[in-house]
Amino acid sequence: MTEPGGLFSGLFGRGAVGVTDVDWLQAMLDTEAALARTVERAGLAAAGAGAAVTAAASTGTFDRAEIGREAMLTGNPVPALVRALSAAVPDAARNAVHRGATSQDIIDTALMLLARRALEVIDGDLAAAAAGAAALAGAHAGTVMAGRTLLQQAVPVTFGLVAAGWLTAIDAGRQDLDRARSRLAVQFGGAAGTLASLGPAGSTVAGLLAHELGLAEPVLPWHTDRLRVLQLAAALTGVCAALGKIARDITLLAETEIAEVAEGGDHPRRGGSSAMPQKRNPVGSVVVLGCTRRAPGLLATLAAAAEHELQRAAGAWHAEWEPLTDLLRLTGSAASWSVPLLTELHVDADRMRANLAATGGLPLAEHVAAALAPAVGVLAAQDLVAAAAARAAGEGLSLAEALLADPAGAAALRDAGIGRADLDAAVDPAGYLGASAEFISRALAAHASRDGIT
Amino acid sequence: MTEPGGLFSGLFGRGAVGVTDVDWLQAMLDTEAALARTVERAGLAAAGAGAAVTAAASTGTFDRAEIGREAMLTGNPVPALVRALSAAVPDAARNAVHRGATSQDIIDTALMLLARRALEVIDGDLAAAAAGAAALAGAHAGTVMAGRTLLQQAVPVTFGLVAAGWLTAIDAGRQDLDRARSRLAVQFGGAAGTLASLGPAGSTVAGLLAHELGLAEPVLPWHTDRLRVLQLAAALTGVCAALGKIARDITLLAETEIAEVAEGGDHPRRGGSSAMPQKRNPVGSVVVLGCTRRAPGLLATLAAAAEHELQRAAGAWHAEWEPLTDLLRLTGSAASWSVPLLTELHVDADRMRANLAATGGLPLAEHVAAALAPAVGVLAAQDLVAAAAARAAGEGLSLAEALLADPAGAAALRDAGIGRADLDAAVDPAGYLGASAEFISRALAAHASRDGIT
Amino acid sequence: MTEPGGLFSGLFGRGAVGVTDVDWLQAMLDTEAALARTVERAGLAAAGAGAAVTAAASTGTFDRAEIGREAMLTGNPVPALVRALSAAVPDAARNAVHRGATSQDIIDTALMLLARRALEVIDGDLAAAAAGAAALAGAHAGTVMAGRTLLQQAVPVTFGLVAAGWLTAIDAGRQDLDRARSRLAVQFGGAAGTLASLGPAGSTVAGLLAHELGLAEPVLPWHTDRLRVLQLAAALTGVCAALGKIARDITLLAETEIAEVAEGGDHPRRGGSSAMPQKRNPVGSVVVLGCTRRAPGLLATLAAAAEHELQRAAGAWHAEWEPLTDLLRLTGSAASWSVPLLTELHVDADRMRANLAATGGLPLAEHVAAALAPAVGVLAAQDLVAAAAARAAGEGLSLAEALLADPAGAAALRDAGIGRADLDAAVDPAGYLGASAEFISRALAAHASRDGIT
Amino acid sequence: MTEPGGLFSGLFGRGAVGVTDVDWLQAMLDTEAALARTVERAGLAAAGAGAAVTAAASTGTFDRAEIGREAMLTGNPVPALVRALSAAVPDAARNAVHRGATSQDIIDTALMLLARRALEVIDGDLAAAAAGAAALAGAHAGTVMAGRTLLQQAVPVTFGLVAAGWLTAIDAGRQDLDRARSRLAVQFGGAAGTLASLGPAGSTVAGLLAHELGLAEPVLPWHTDRLRVLQLAAALTGVCAALGKIARDITLLAETEIAEVAEGGDHPRRGGSSAMPQKRNPVGSVVVLGCTRRAPGLLATLAAAAEHELQRAAGAWHAEWEPLTDLLRLTGSAASWSVPLLTELHVDADRMRANLAATGGLPLAEHVAAALAPAVGVLAAQDLVAAAAARAAGEGLSLAEALLADPAGAAALRDAGIGRADLDAAVDPAGYLGASAEFISRALAAHASRDGIT
Repeated sequence: MTEPGGLFSGLFGRGAVGVTDVDWLQAMLDTEAALARTVERAGLAAAGAGAAVTAAASTGTFDRAEIGREAMLTGNPVPALVRALSAAVPDAARNAVHRGATSQDIIDTALMLLARRALEVIDGDLAAAAAGAAALAGAHAGTVMAGRTLLQQAVPVTFGLVAAGWLTAIDAGRQDLDRARSRLAVQFGGAAGTLASLGPAGSTVAGLLAHELGLAEPVLPWHTDRLRVLQLAAALTGVCAALGKIARDITLLAETEIAEVAEGGDHPRRGGSSAMPQKRNPVGSVVVLGCTRRAPGLLATLAAAAEHELQRAAGAWHAEWEPLTDLLRLTGSAASWSVPLLTELHVDADRMRANLAATGGLPLAEHVAAALAPAVGVLAAQDLVAAAAARAAGEGLSLAEALLADPAGAAALRDAGIGRADLDAAVDPAGYLGASAEFISRALAAHASRDGIT
Repeated sequence: MTEPGGLFSGLFGRGAVGVTDVDWLQAMLDTEAALARTVERAGLAAAGAGAAVTAAASTGTFDRAEIGREAMLTGNPVPALVRALSAAVPDAARNAVHRGATSQDIIDTALMLLARRALEVIDGDLAAAAAGAAALAGAHAGTVMAGRTLLQQAVPVTFGLVAAGWLTAIDAGRQDLDRARSRLAVQFGGAAGTLASLGPAGSTVAGLLAHELGLAEPVLPWHTDRLRVLQLAAALTGVCAALGKIARDITLLAETEIAEVAEGGDHPRRGGSSAMPQKRNPVGSVVVLGCTRRAPGLLATLAAAAEHELQRAAGAWHAEWEPLTDLLRLTGSAASWSVPLLTELHVDADRMRANLAATGGLPLAEHVAAALAPAVGVLAAQDLVAAAAARAAGEGLSLAEALLADPAGAAALRDAGIGRADLDAAVDPAGYLGASAEFISRALAAHASRDGIT
Repeated sequence: MTEPGGLFSGLFGRGAVGVTDVDWLQAMLDTEAALARTVERAGLAAAGAGAAVTAAASTGTFDRAEIGREAMLTGNPVPALVRALSAAVPDAARNAVHRGATSQDIIDTALMLLARRALEVIDGDLAAAAAGAAALAGAHAGTVMAGRTLLQQAVPVTFGLVAAGWLTAIDAGRQDLDRARSRLAVQFGGAAGTLASLGPAGSTVAGLLAHELGLAEPVLPWHTDRLRVLQLAAALTGVCAALGKIARDITLLAETEIAEVAEGGDHPRRGGSSAMPQKRNPVGSVVVLGCTRRAPGLLATLAAAAEHELQRAAGAWHAEWEPLTDLLRLTGSAASWSVPLLTELHVDADRMRANLAATGGLPLAEHVAAALAPAVGVLAAQDLVAAAAARAAGEGLSLAEALLADPAGAAALRDAGIGRADLDAAVDPAGYLGASAEFISRALAAHASRDGIT
Repeated sequence: MTEPGGLFSGLFGRGAVGVTDVDWLQAMLDTEAALARTVERAGLAAAGAGAAVTAAASTGTFDRAEIGREAMLTGNPVPALVRALSAAVPDAARNAVHRGATSQDIIDTALMLLARRALEVIDGDLAAAAAGAAALAGAHAGTVMAGRTLLQQAVPVTFGLVAAGWLTAIDAGRQDLDRARSRLAVQFGGAAGTLASLGPAGSTVAGLLAHELGLAEPVLPWHTDRLRVLQLAAALTGVCAALGKIARDITLLAETEIAEVAEGGDHPRRGGSSAMPQKRNPVGSVVVLGCTRRAPGLLATLAAAAEHELQRAAGAWHAEWEPLTDLLRLTGSAASWSVPLLTELHVDADRMRANLAATGGLPLAEHVAAALAPAVGVLAAQDLVAAAAARAAGEGLSLAEALLADPAGAAALRDAGIGRADLDAAVDPAGYLGASAEFISRALAAHASRDGIT
């Protein structure tokens, strides 16, 4: 499923990451063409051979179905592709085709090319999503809301701080993508990693090929050292983790009973249900989660497949192709969906304030306890306030009322020199935001400097 | 990637399991059509409504790309499909379309239909593969070879016993598939599992729909109880485990230095390399492994996605669709590849015997130790034979020679009344096969009775 | 970590599942003792040998640290255990120790014994948890609440139906556990699965040993056929999925803003925070999730490890021991935590009703649209109600008010012959519960019959 | 299981990584002590408070079982630990205990401390293992052996090149560990990440605490941004991938029929079986695989757990503790086992040469085809040599003989001007090693420079 232009491609393949069959074929042809040009440059093929192969690789019409059938004989599509490509070039250029290479060189390098393009696309979408998060962080630095731990109201935070956390996570994810991108390396080792068929020219050709393709040159051919695949997959999974957390937060904050945020998008059918007319489902965040929840299993498959035997794996290598492709596609889709999610999000500051106030000051219990602590000790203060909080919740009182109604509480307040006005101040969320504003500034500054250096 | 008829579909999508976009669309339409017929039967729609919807669902031309674009508004393709289907039926039939249903009812039931067909296909291929294994088990009940533990020669076995183990595992996998198949159930609960929009007819319609589709009727709608999805995935993974173990064994036994088996297939390019003319790679088993190694990660994704919130999951459900589809496809491909693997396998009995003999009787060390044990005790016998084995390996002697050359060994043999002829008999593999033949018979009998009852 | 009686054992190892080092040792000794008794019964050892080994295995003091050190020489603890056990029995019994067995026979069978005991414990806790769910389903068959899909209010359900869903999932999980339990089988095949060292008595001893231990006798030794391990793991993961879904629902329904349920437990520090005095965290469901979220990864590890090479795996087998142990422990802990969760849950029916009413009838939009459909058609009715729902949400009206205020809506109501009283009835949740009560009855009946037959 | 000093701890917990219950407790106490000292330094507690808490945290006797029981009330051990620690310090120091912190601050920071120590230990073992690989690479730069792809002999390589590949992978793994180590950061945000209870001193205390502990200071508290946990886990998994590949290679090269390497270790019982006296199992590599095969599932669990809700996760956080601990322990054990594996490995160069020669020059088929290609074209040359290779394999001829015996082959050789001496040279492995020596030098140079800079 998730075929290009199909029923599910808008959900799980949104955005410009290109990993279709056609993209795969072109990436393999691009690799073969670059190899032919390189071989010519190294003096191993006639002048013009590189251009001839490049022309055939660009314009040749290759029958994917036929190559696919032939792939069943050899376990991968490269031998059939090489036969077809060879047939499409003049005799004089034929010895530049696939020169010195083995199938794995072509497929691995093609994967690197697909990954490089995908990472560019993903990074662009992440930059837009991060800009959305940064805008939210800045705009809502003073928008007070309930912090929630274990899904219970805890202490006040600001929505700006929440968005700053989203921003920092996206930026950290992008940083890992950058690193993974810098490690994308050409694969070129020939039959068993010695490049023997190129004679003394082997490592020279490998270096030139890396340069031709704009990929890194590895210390050794990495046929059976899959760490860079694992790193790439881990970086993509990290991005999914960041985006999944954001989407999860949005689904929670958009709950009917909380209703502090809502997804944007003004199409009349957006978020609709096939049954319930009132529904405005948080489609974007749900689909993001539908993508990001896939990453851990794909990562595990790639990690388990990293144990390649001797000079070429018997199965583990084949097991990598689709999962890595899927991971690029799904991360790309999640990133693409996240852009409108973060740039068009509706934020209801009134509702945030109202939700925080609804429990009569309970989220300020820590603050009140801290005010009492110098007078009665930390643990005793906590116990007093815990008792008042329980009573407040049970009897529908505010925390302040409950504390004052408790003789021990009233006494402690007196001992601590805390009057009613002090108490009211203590339960004002705006007075208990700690380093929220500072943290937002730090996140925005880190984001700005990152954007500057990337 | 792995698009139908593409570069990789012969590798990862071989066989007749149908899970393309077109298959998905038809399965959803089949579900809607069956629902319309059921609704008519229950007296909730005009006579002929079921047939009208069925006709539209069978012949209507639906634009998958358009449905896919609309799916981005609602998070799944059903609302757009329902609109298109409604537009394609006469007014009188329109209230039979999607009656009482929610999107999840359609997608989950469609998945059950796809799974049912896939399981039939897979079971057919597994039956053929099992027949191949059974034939090998029968034909090679007396073909002696080295049993290998931790990849070291251990004691003799027969190749028939190895094949009997393959057979038993396939049969166990099929048994689990049967059970999973019997649990494939209609999904029909409406917006939140109450079927309220059908009034008092709800559960009646649900029961009729199950009957119409030939699926089980569950105790409750299972929108957020995903155990049957997990069971299905676990059964498929079990089949992959069985097939992967067989493929792994074949790659090992086909190693150049062991060469006891070789894959069949007589196409001149079969098993060829793009670089090395002498290569006859074990393509079938490598591709099987390339499929089966994917199952654990997909299973983990589906298991992690089984935690569905309240009355419909916000993301976890969407995360199931592709992995389950992939698992059906990959298991189907592994099963399809396994048929020629097991029915055309070349077995080299001479090489098996030669490999077993190559270490001069060492795999019979346990037997020799057992013969000495009554005379000198179990541990002492093991130590004596271990010493002789070490010497044999180091000096190129046979185990018998090394034992006789050791004064303590020779004395123990004398004490045990073991002469040279007894010793030679003790190191004859054919005399140390234990229950191998009996076990083969058991496996074949179990297989035969299973084939009878299935 | 999670050492017995340690910092984390109450969280991740609650309940009576016993899988400590001591349990492992005893299970291995129990296996060896049963083998010795069996060997004697089969006439292969002197009378009394079985009793002697059993006595040594029960009372002997084995040095786990010393066995652990020796295990580093051989890769598993059995050879050292056999040496120690042999030294602890009289000479006459020594040839009954470990007779015919290989290390894997002992470890695999010990795992089956540990699993059997664990499954009994888990099933007992699940039975208690299911009873709690059944009681909730019965008691709250009429407790109306909002059904929530994608975390948005959808249509009304009853809390009894929610609990019935929990119940059905637990029961389905128990059914799978039963099946996995029935497949727990003795492992006994000797060095390479032929039982050759027992001569003609091999399969007889295997059958007797299965009987002695009360385990199933497999068709073949299953050294490298790991399907039953995978099935066991999948069944445990299914239980975790059921319990995790329940815990997730409870955390969501316990959110400060929803507050429809609260965990029981009256210890003053229960649910407390180290910082916030007002906190009553849903500790039980959080810890259940902390356990159940581990299952998918462990299952994946076991599934990936199911590809065992030839006659004994070189690594994959070792990779099973801890994950299976962990999965038994964590499932047991989740089950144990779930008992109080479900038997002591506080349910706030008033809050449920209030939350459902808070949006002015929006969750009844489907009902209202259905009432209009005969007059104006399905899609037009949905569009009308969708518009009214949007206006209601935006302007703080009830759905009925918004519909009446819309000229097209008012006209449609007139055309459909729906007066204000009819409209008020249509937005009464109690009148739109569909098959809820029937479904609860079905779930309770299925539960009762299951409890009868188990 | 795998309790300290138990049956399995030598297998799965070898080496000096400390993650026992006692280690956990101490790491939490170290965090609390550092916080107290920091708070004093920031002027928030009385002089001497830091020292008092540190003294109590160092010498206090804490009852782990009691803390564990209390942890069941709050879902983690910190509240009980704080109570016990508070009770152990003088009144004047009490307000320095846990000041400003929440439970997650303590547990996350403790995990960072445990990870830091573990990474040091692991890096030390990896350095020793890498030195072993480097020594093998250098010593065996000229040791010719068969390169094997898909487990079939391919073309010649040198054992030095194989070891250079192992070396490069270990070094890459270490590089990732370095990066993960540099990102280990203090966790300190208080109840919901605002540090509100510290008033204006919040971020100052956070910075000082990071400095006190020698951990990085993050941009924001990372309570629900788990990317650094994921990166750490991915880096550990990368190391496991590198070590698992090496161990897999060793098990394959140590196969009875290949026998090119053998594990060192001269204990008489090393590698022994409980049944077979001749066995010398490759225990070290098998146990390494038993550890490394666990990493992917643990990584997946941690990746799936990275989706933390709002300001503290309800379950996902708890699900991290054991898996990360396990991953540190298992990676540490694999690294520890790998040291003797690589520093004591026996290499049989004669056997390597013999195995390569056993098929009569087939691994040089690529070389021969390349020699013919200029005369007859690439594809025709490959077809000719493929035919000769098939005949050679079938009839027991050498490749040269088979080619000469084929009229077309003989003609092609003539056309290409290749005489018998040229042909013999073409099938000499030593003449077809390509860039092997150069690649070894590159790997050693990269290793040396890395060791210099780390």
